[in-house]
Amino acid sequence: MAALRPGKASHMYKPVLMGKKRVMVPAEDVDLSTVKYEPDVIQAPHLTGLTFKLFVKFLEIPVIGPLVISHLKKQNKMVELLQNTVIPEAPMYKPEYPPQETEPGVVIVDEDGKPEERVESALNCLPPYDAASCWNDDLASSFRYWKIRDYSHAYRSKIVTPSMVAERIISAIEDFNVKKTPMPLLISFDAEEVRKQAAASTKRFEEGGTTWMHEVRSVEKDAVCVSRLRSCGVIFVGKSNMHELDMGTTGNNSNYGTTRNPHAVDRYTGGSSSGPAAIVASGLCSAALGTDGGGSIRIPSSLCGVVGLKTTHGRTDLRGSLCDSGTVAIIGPIASSVEDSPPCLPKLSTHDGTDALGSLRLGKYTAWFNDVHSTDVSDKGEDILNLLTKTHGCEMVEIVIPELQEMRTAHVVQIGSEMLNSINPDIEDGKGVRLNYDSRIIVGLFQTFSASDYIATQRLRRRMMCHHMKIFRNVDVLVTPTTGYAILLSKLILLPIVESLSTPNSMLNITG
Amino acid sequence: MAALRPGKASHMYKPVLMGKKRVMVPAEDVDLSTVKYEPDVIQAPHLTGLTFKLFVKFLEIPVIGPLVISHLKKQNKMVELLQNTVIPEAPMYKPEYPPQETEPGVVIVDEDGKPEERVESALNCLPPYDAASCWNDDLASSFRYWKIRDYSHAYRSKIVTPSMVAERIISAIEDFNVKKTPMPLLISFDAEEVRKQAAASTKRFEEGGTTWMHEVRSVEKDAVCVSRLRSCGVIFVGKSNMHELDMGTTGNNSNYGTTRNPHAVDRYTGGSSSGPAAIVASGLCSAALGTDGGGSIRIPSSLCGVVGLKTTHGRTDLRGSLCDSGTVAIIGPIASSVEDSPPCLPKLSTHDGTDALGSLRLGKYTAWFNDVHSTDVSDKGEDILNLLTKTHGCEMVEIVIPELQEMRTAHVVQIGSEMLNSINPDIEDGKGVRLNYDSRIIVGLFQTFSASDYIATQRLRRRMMCHHMKIFRNVDVLVTPTTGYAILLSKLILLPIVESLSTPNSMLNITG
Repeated sequence: MAALRPGKASHMYKPVLMGKKRVMVPAEDVDLSTVKYEPDVIQAPHLTGLTFKLFVKFLEIPVIGPLVISHLKKQNKMVELLQNTVIPEAPMYKPEYPPQETEPGVVIVDEDGKPEERVESALNCLPPYDAASCWNDDLASSFRYWKIRDYSHAYRSKIVTPSMVAERIISAIEDFNVKKTPMPLLISFDAEEVRKQAAASTKRFEEGGTTWMHEVRSVEKDAVCVSRLRSCGVIFVGKSNMHELDMGTTGNNSNYGTTRNPHAVDRYTGGSSSGPAAIVASGLCSAALGTDGGGSIRIPSSLCGVVGLKTTHGRTDLRGSLCDSGTVAIIGPIASSVEDSPPCLPKLSTHDGTDALGSLRLGKYTAWFNDVHSTDVSDKGEDILNLLTKTHGCEMVEIVIPELQEMRTAHVVQIGSEMLNSINPDIEDGKGVRLNYDSRIIVGLFQTFSASDYIATQRLRRRMMCHHMKIFRNVDVLVTPTTGYAILLSKLILLPIVESLSTPNSMLNITG
Repeated sequence: MAALRPGKASHMYKPVLMGKKRVMVPAEDVDLSTVKYEPDVIQAPHLTGLTFKLFVKFLEIPVIGPLVISHLKKQNKMVELLQNTVIPEAPMYKPEYPPQETEPGVVIVDEDGKPEERVESALNCLPPYDAASCWNDDLASSFRYWKIRDYSHAYRSKIVTPSMVAERIISAIEDFNVKKTPMPLLISFDAEEVRKQAAASTKRFEEGGTTWMHEVRSVEKDAVCVSRLRSCGVIFVGKSNMHELDMGTTGNNSNYGTTRNPHAVDRYTGGSSSGPAAIVASGLCSAALGTDGGGSIRIPSSLCGVVGLKTTHGRTDLRGSLCDSGTVAIIGPIASSVEDSPPCLPKLSTHDGTDALGSLRLGKYTAWFNDVHSTDVSDKGEDILNLLTKTHGCEMVEIVIPELQEMRTAHVVQIGSEMLNSINPDIEDGKGVRLNYDSRIIVGLFQTFSASDYIATQRLRRRMMCHHMKIFRNVDVLVTPTTGYAILLSKLILLPIVESLSTPNSMLNITG
């Protein structure tokens, strides 16, 4: 975000030139008194009669016509203004959703509340912490995923300190880096920085009180989601590896190396959030952040056997992230357990004696459910559905979803155009050739989408919303396999699909 | 709209083929039980290693690369789904406006109220009707523009009947059609239909009561704005001429002939709503409807010396009109007087003793104000500003508006892409060559706008909104000449610009 707010020039009206890139000063910082009037001069041939008609026919010749028009657009600065310019403002629309009733049993955590109160309110939604069963004699002998409450208990009971945990994590990560099979989980890691954060945390626990990180450390450059977690005392270990620019679902990355699946190092993690899923699956961290516009959290979570959640668009704050101007992608959690995957955890646990799951009607489109690469995937899915229906008493409802191909097409145009728009000034500045080959092919595809295509996808989006509202009159959730490929583990997720055009299947089909 | 709702097929799931055009059934009419699952098959070359890298470099060659990608998109039905298909749903976003306070003295007419009550409530905002001065002895000797209240008074006082007026209008229009200089005001005119509407209206006045047209005549195919006016007893004379598809500001139309300016038949009316402005200026009708996305009501109103209003987006109901899915264009009134140009007429009249105009702060960007083709335009503007400041006591405030070229560029991409999207299936079906030459050149330009360009314009739009909110802290209205060309008359309008990226100047510069 620093590049978008060039400090010295913040009072100037003119965009700042950086190579071919024009970086606009945020509108709110523009000092109107520096504005100078510039008369508009249109450069175009002035033709009439026959020469005009011939010119029209010439412009209509495929390939040549668009080239001439492109030239005229460049002459009139249209390319420079729209493609080479970083415009700091978000687009002038937001996705609309039909108003919906709050689900029963859901506790809304006040976004503006104090961090300690928000944490408290979220904790109240969980069953009581059972220290005895978590800290038994098997501890030393078996691997387990530590939950956030395990750390919290250990710190408060003085079993360990944050600094001791940090040292263990630092040495584990350093071990990974010198292994025979490289395991590039993180692309940015500073052991000293982690030690510093851990020491501050240790001090807070020693003092028994809660001082907040944001008061002792400038978080100006953090994305909002990061600064909020910092304010709750979270220690950030590093910046994780991922599929380049989010534009793929394998995690393949020739820049930093491809993240490997901790369960089988010769297999993919899935992507794009390959690093976050792998680091959680390796047991090093309880939770990580990813972004998801077309399965980028859900796919690697599934293939790494951990829990990933694509939240409803708008439920997490996107400011400061690369996807903050899009209408599809979101920031969401990847964790080793459902308990550690907020936000806004519904009260589905059984600790108050009732099984909230039992009231759910599960919508299953069987033909789609079974359209997978291997029956391993659908069979595993059926097992989990059986568990949900027989043990928890869920009702299974057969459904159909029309126009899946339209949905997939609309999705790729939507997310692709929004992604391209966010990196276009850099591509026009010549950075495109420094992308990986698979990113370059995708950028080439995205560049062919027309403005009218984008509007058409917005029409399809409303249409899909209409179809889904109809389906959701009869069911509460849609159930699908997360991925169509059983690269390692196939996990069934309850898919809150209504807010997204994307489905994991669609994304895998597109890129897989 | 009929084409969008093929009656017989309304229960079917599949789109209806009409030539190359695929017309989707409205989502709400889709019967989910007719949906069949279709597995997705992606057609793309499978390449690895060197051949893959070479393929990427091949795709990056200008002109050829995009052609190959276009071919692959076609193979995978992307073109068919997005460009050849009529998708009946509106796009999934709407323009956002910062919340604003209601202006003092404005009466909001309840949209859901009964027609008679809404008319009553609007009438209460006007000064009392002064019959004596309207119906004096000069009537026969001089031309005047009749207002809607003049007709109302004449009907109620039994001076004339609607049928008598209808006969006069019919004969005037028939005279126009056989004149030496053709004057194609209307492109659809049915004298018998006008007589029928007038007879029904005459009957209502004879009976002294109010029966509503919508009860005796099916208005299923009317746009909402038309059916609402019908419900208030309005008689529709015909469908007026205009610039083809709204895509120009001269009114030049080689299909139906170019509407001529009633004040000087060798001059343009301006466009695109050329016919509505001309028919009002000729004195035949008190009011007409037009659409305006970039000056299409304001420009011809100005050049024909009548009153035109681009309403705030969302203030008039667009359903059933060609621009009903856009975010720029609106439906608005053209009339011979401000009194006849609702909607939501603010109480600016002096009949309650106060001059509401006096409290207005007028924002003038002098460099822009004077950037006109002839000083006739700016001088006339100055005269009116003098009247507003000296007679009414308005305050003049010098302002600047930054990034006018960005605004013009964003505007043309925005409105052009939305227009193209609404006609694209017909153009892909081969109807493009049947457009006028100037429309074809504009369609060619619009086809080169990319999805990323469209998103960039949405960013610029938010930015412009930010600039304007800053400006509107110090002023209440922006004043500009409506057109930069004094083809006939230049009228100054008070421009409620905040809701629109378009300005009359910008549109004239683009196409003039």
